[in-house]
Amino acid sequence: MPSLRVTVWGENVHEQTDAAVRSVYPNGMHHAIAVGIREYLVGAAVETVTFQEPDHGLTEARLAQTDVLTWWGHRAHEQVADIVVDRVHRRVLEGMGLIVLHSGHFSKIFKRLMGTTCSLNWRVAGERERLWVCNPGHPIARGIDRCFELPHEEMYGEPFAVPAPEEHVFISWFEGGEVFRSGCCWRRGNGRIFYFRPGHETYPTYLDRNVRRVIANAVDWARPQGHWPDACVNIKEPIEPINRPEDRTKKR
Amino acid sequence: MPSLRVTVWGENVHEQTDAAVRSVYPNGMHHAIAVGIREYLVGAAVETVTFQEPDHGLTEARLAQTDVLTWWGHRAHEQVADIVVDRVHRRVLEGMGLIVLHSGHFSKIFKRLMGTTCSLNWRVAGERERLWVCNPGHPIARGIDRCFELPHEEMYGEPFAVPAPEEHVFISWFEGGEVFRSGCCWRRGNGRIFYFRPGHETYPTYLDRNVRRVIANAVDWARPQGHWPDACVNIKEPIEPINRPEDRTKKR
Amino acid sequence: MPSLRVTVWGENVHEQTDAAVRSVYPNGMHHAIAVGIREYLVGAAVETVTFQEPDHGLTEARLAQTDVLTWWGHRAHEQVADIVVDRVHRRVLEGMGLIVLHSGHFSKIFKRLMGTTCSLNWRVAGERERLWVCNPGHPIARGIDRCFELPHEEMYGEPFAVPAPEEHVFISWFEGGEVFRSGCCWRRGNGRIFYFRPGHETYPTYLDRNVRRVIANAVDWARPQGHWPDACVNIKEPIEPINRPEDRTKKR
Amino acid sequence: MPSLRVTVWGENVHEQTDAAVRSVYPNGMHHAIAVGIREYLVGAAVETVTFQEPDHGLTEARLAQTDVLTWWGHRAHEQVADIVVDRVHRRVLEGMGLIVLHSGHFSKIFKRLMGTTCSLNWRVAGERERLWVCNPGHPIARGIDRCFELPHEEMYGEPFAVPAPEEHVFISWFEGGEVFRSGCCWRRGNGRIFYFRPGHETYPTYLDRNVRRVIANAVDWARPQGHWPDACVNIKEPIEPINRPEDRTKKR
Repeated sequence: MPSLRVTVWGENVHEQTDAAVRSVYPNGMHHAIAVGIREYLVGAAVETVTFQEPDHGLTEARLAQTDVLTWWGHRAHEQVADIVVDRVHRRVLEGMGLIVLHSGHFSKIFKRLMGTTCSLNWRVAGERERLWVCNPGHPIARGIDRCFELPHEEMYGEPFAVPAPEEHVFISWFEGGEVFRSGCCWRRGNGRIFYFRPGHETYPTYLDRNVRRVIANAVDWARPQGHWPDACVNIKEPIEPINRPEDRTKKR
Repeated sequence: MPSLRVTVWGENVHEQTDAAVRSVYPNGMHHAIAVGIREYLVGAAVETVTFQEPDHGLTEARLAQTDVLTWWGHRAHEQVADIVVDRVHRRVLEGMGLIVLHSGHFSKIFKRLMGTTCSLNWRVAGERERLWVCNPGHPIARGIDRCFELPHEEMYGEPFAVPAPEEHVFISWFEGGEVFRSGCCWRRGNGRIFYFRPGHETYPTYLDRNVRRVIANAVDWARPQGHWPDACVNIKEPIEPINRPEDRTKKR
Repeated sequence: MPSLRVTVWGENVHEQTDAAVRSVYPNGMHHAIAVGIREYLVGAAVETVTFQEPDHGLTEARLAQTDVLTWWGHRAHEQVADIVVDRVHRRVLEGMGLIVLHSGHFSKIFKRLMGTTCSLNWRVAGERERLWVCNPGHPIARGIDRCFELPHEEMYGEPFAVPAPEEHVFISWFEGGEVFRSGCCWRRGNGRIFYFRPGHETYPTYLDRNVRRVIANAVDWARPQGHWPDACVNIKEPIEPINRPEDRTKKR
Repeated sequence: MPSLRVTVWGENVHEQTDAAVRSVYPNGMHHAIAVGIREYLVGAAVETVTFQEPDHGLTEARLAQTDVLTWWGHRAHEQVADIVVDRVHRRVLEGMGLIVLHSGHFSKIFKRLMGTTCSLNWRVAGERERLWVCNPGHPIARGIDRCFELPHEEMYGEPFAVPAPEEHVFISWFEGGEVFRSGCCWRRGNGRIFYFRPGHETYPTYLDRNVRRVIANAVDWARPQGHWPDACVNIKEPIEPINRPEDRTKKR
């Protein structure tokens, strides 16, 4: 049995419609992301599914066998079926890890888990991004130097409209003058969630050694920690006796 | 102009269908909640609206003039129109305070803001509840002794499936043997959210002096702190010059 | 090499001066705690040291080889040498896990890590305590039912003067009417910290199956996650060129 | 009576020993900070005290009449008397606000409240700093545009070794390529704490309009919210009767 079962979800729309994207990612961004995870997580079973498949590839059966799901989407956010979002949401709360990548900040699933708009400012100018490690001892920063650079990236700028992150792993510096909380951790129910900023579709970000390492680290970190059988149970029988009020002698 | 504009939202279903509830709250639970807030927040403009009104009483105009909204619902959670939930959600993120009462833990708006199931265990046995103050200096505990009791309440028991609260104000002890995080604070966007546990419809909880004081304190605490003009802005012009990559001499 | 190196620190004062304590813990409380951890963490190297040893048993060498330290103290809090506290503090920030037990809430090391008084209310009346699981999927609650009972314990009551816990695992219900946040998690630097309430010296709490399981789970959870080479470095050479102010053309 | 009583603490060492500092701050940095607060907080009573005074100016009487304390120190951190640090610590936990400025990150009081090393990386090169607002609706960002610049500042770079901030208000971009969490909020006991990064002694930072506005906003935000009479009380008499174990019939 694999040590970890990872599903890489790819929206796979830009790759079909934009030759520039296809030239960077001839097999799709999801393919590059999966290859990167496999490089660092030997023994993990990493599979890809895409938006275009029935149930967007995220059937009950698939999700039941997924320990960690990664999510890259952009164009088709609103076309992702609510029933599939419900399913992913339920699985995260049960304990499945979720790694949300780049433009996935506006996905239905991320917004639902955060409860906020998840908005941010942006610019596509091919500028340099430098990601600084805020917490060098964090498992997600393992093997990463005190910072690393991406020569060309889209800029995302603060304010990032999310609940206060429980842990910060990366903050980005942009050549054009902005900053962004680029690597943030949250827990919801039993699930661990990591948002990782880089990954504009026209740049070879998911071929970058450091980016691959971070995503693999995050997948490893997000593995299920336990199981919470969520329920709303009517506990009819009290453990302690409940006195009739007329028998009570209040002592205060 | 009033110092604070408060809207008390009442589901007002039990009051119409259950004589026991009507006998405790002849003018509706929302009426009792509003009276309690007025007692402690002199100068506040406190109005009530109900589920049965057009837009459930929560029109754009009403919400635009609401600083803090309180929410008691139970039977009709699923019948609250999504468009109204969207509207309330947007206003909370902009800065409107939200006080969620008792069975409101399963309301659409609370679940959306939390991103979790918000489930809990429960029992209706008329047992004694004692609420302990965890943070005696918190504004929501102002004027409250180190604990207070409600002679008859529904029991809510852990686990309460919410994100880790940012502040704990109350934890409940139940006669039947359970405990519950009864007074919890979160921030989402610019809005402050307080969940307050007590308030089963068949008990005169909203006539209780301490409960009224806590709700009034919470309304005061949740008043808007500022305004966040949420947007996703394309910052086309960088502040700093962006060099062409061929010009760069990396220095590391 | 052992999978995990655990040091159980025992104050070992009550055991020497109080026959009642000695009758429950003939080999000292630290011995019982260590036995309990070994039961559940097969392969771990679990050793005990006590206050009475040179450096209270916590030499640089010992700490350098400790992955997780457990701490039970009470009478001798103020006699623990500051230099040893400094040493433990440094190791926690580097990544060593720390499990603080019962009256250890007033230890120098816990107060230093929390930054608050860590005070609470208390009563010794041999009353029943019931610990409820707030987060059934948490690794520290693994193998624990929805609650468990201790027939006789000292009572600790809210308010517990600590920073808001990052995770709640247990809340206690006391027969005498109080509640307490009995199992709380924090991170400081690279170290994970867990406070676990039960363990009054005159009761056989550390012989209890559930208590042993929780402590072993906590030790496992607190294992080092990474290494942070803390430093305050003067980065003399900037990565990006710094322009002379007279050359700047501000673009805003 | 003033609406708010503010004490500005100045180390006042650089000003005495360094002509460059004296030329920027002829009356001391504390004077400039106090003037800035008065500009924006009309009605507040703002007074300055310095390290050189008896008790460093922080007598019991002074602190008892201080609602918010600001702290700038650098050279003399280790010479601040522990008894004075104890006093300030106690007052923060009781509810006094604390604004820690720039090199104050290494002050005894800040390290004690955080429980961590509070280390960071740094460079003095007179570079440009741009502070971005992460939370535009936060009271501390009131009146501040989406970012503001300081033409010359010392650089502070991540990692900043503090517990995860409860709220982020500012993140800095540095010309030389680094980033820093420049405006962070925490609560400890009843006290609100804000760390604000800018303020190297050789630059006229505390004459800057935006910096003054932020500090004044922070002072206003940090005003005491309530009073927590911290104690460790032996509650001898239980509220509920405690049964003898032999009488118990456990119902589970």
